[in-house]
Amino acid sequence: MSRENISMEERLKMQMDFIREVDKAKSVFRQTYLTDGSRKENDAEHSWHLAVMAFLLAEHAQEPVDVLKVVKMVLIHDLVEIDAGDTYAYDPSGNASKREREVAGAQRIFHILPKDQADMLYDLWEEFEARETPESKFAHTLDNCQPVLLNDASGGRSWKEHGVCAAQVMGRNQRTGEGSRAIWDYEKQIIEKNIRNGNIKE
Amino acid sequence: MSRENISMEERLKMQMDFIREVDKAKSVFRQTYLTDGSRKENDAEHSWHLAVMAFLLAEHAQEPVDVLKVVKMVLIHDLVEIDAGDTYAYDPSGNASKREREVAGAQRIFHILPKDQADMLYDLWEEFEARETPESKFAHTLDNCQPVLLNDASGGRSWKEHGVCAAQVMGRNQRTGEGSRAIWDYEKQIIEKNIRNGNIKE
Repeated sequence: MSRENISMEERLKMQMDFIREVDKAKSVFRQTYLTDGSRKENDAEHSWHLAVMAFLLAEHAQEPVDVLKVVKMVLIHDLVEIDAGDTYAYDPSGNASKREREVAGAQRIFHILPKDQADMLYDLWEEFEARETPESKFAHTLDNCQPVLLNDASGGRSWKEHGVCAAQVMGRNQRTGEGSRAIWDYEKQIIEKNIRNGNIKE
Repeated sequence: MSRENISMEERLKMQMDFIREVDKAKSVFRQTYLTDGSRKENDAEHSWHLAVMAFLLAEHAQEPVDVLKVVKMVLIHDLVEIDAGDTYAYDPSGNASKREREVAGAQRIFHILPKDQADMLYDLWEEFEARETPESKFAHTLDNCQPVLLNDASGGRSWKEHGVCAAQVMGRNQRTGEGSRAIWDYEKQIIEKNIRNGNIKE
């Protein structure tokens, strides 16, 4: 990707504008509670958690992955929600309009950066969304597994509040094993335990 | 680093215990306010923000850096605060006992992981603390610059609450330019503006 003909100083200014803008991800709240159940988690915290998981769990990826690429992908995968808002996994009407809202968000937010970096982040986000490469499959595995860890730790609070049933959770996780069979096996045991104890409805 | 003789399944179990444990970083609050001034920032959000900065701003590093190493370093650099708590940059008594509290935290928290990964994170944290390598110098530059961006955006709220003066801010940033002269030049302009407008005392 070619760079615009701008100075390093001008690049830094644009990058810093972006850094300030994405601070807003700390105010986009998800439906998942922290492990201690004290409050809901926001996008910045969620993305940090996935990035830590990415480099520690890469050895369990189904195919070899470029770890830096996975880390970048999970760090930026939810930035579109600064404009589009968080769409709860089990909200059908929200999910119908999700793509359009998120593309508009990606166009605006990533293009605060110098063009080569805007294109790089846009491509990385689209790669995540398309879920075709080893890196994006693994990133989705982490993105699916992390809320299950948190929901389980908080006594299934979010599942219970939304009356989530087993078919919904299993449907959402239909492809989780593609990124890592081992992580999916681990996660599935947690889901099954929460079906048995009633945190997830049969 | 050699691996213990344990199965991949046992490794994954230990790694997942660590992933759950570090969720607590989302409840360690710093003195810096979000850009909109709505509330203070926590360690997980701060670390996410630094990781995004690390890969976008690496082109401004004073010496070439291993970007993945910087990203890992900033993602885990504050985990010790789960046990040690956040020590405010301008708190002399807190800073006197900081090292001892943080070493104990590192020993406990990192060793939830399989030994090879515990050693890797401990070494990475010590490398950050020692501030001798290009990666750790750059990580410190980001760690110093990010709260200045946020304090400036929130009208200097944290500086004013603590009555912070110019000598303190300049003292803390004495080595910021080692990691990136360009980022330090940018940050210095923001600091000088906040000295002129009274957010930082003369």
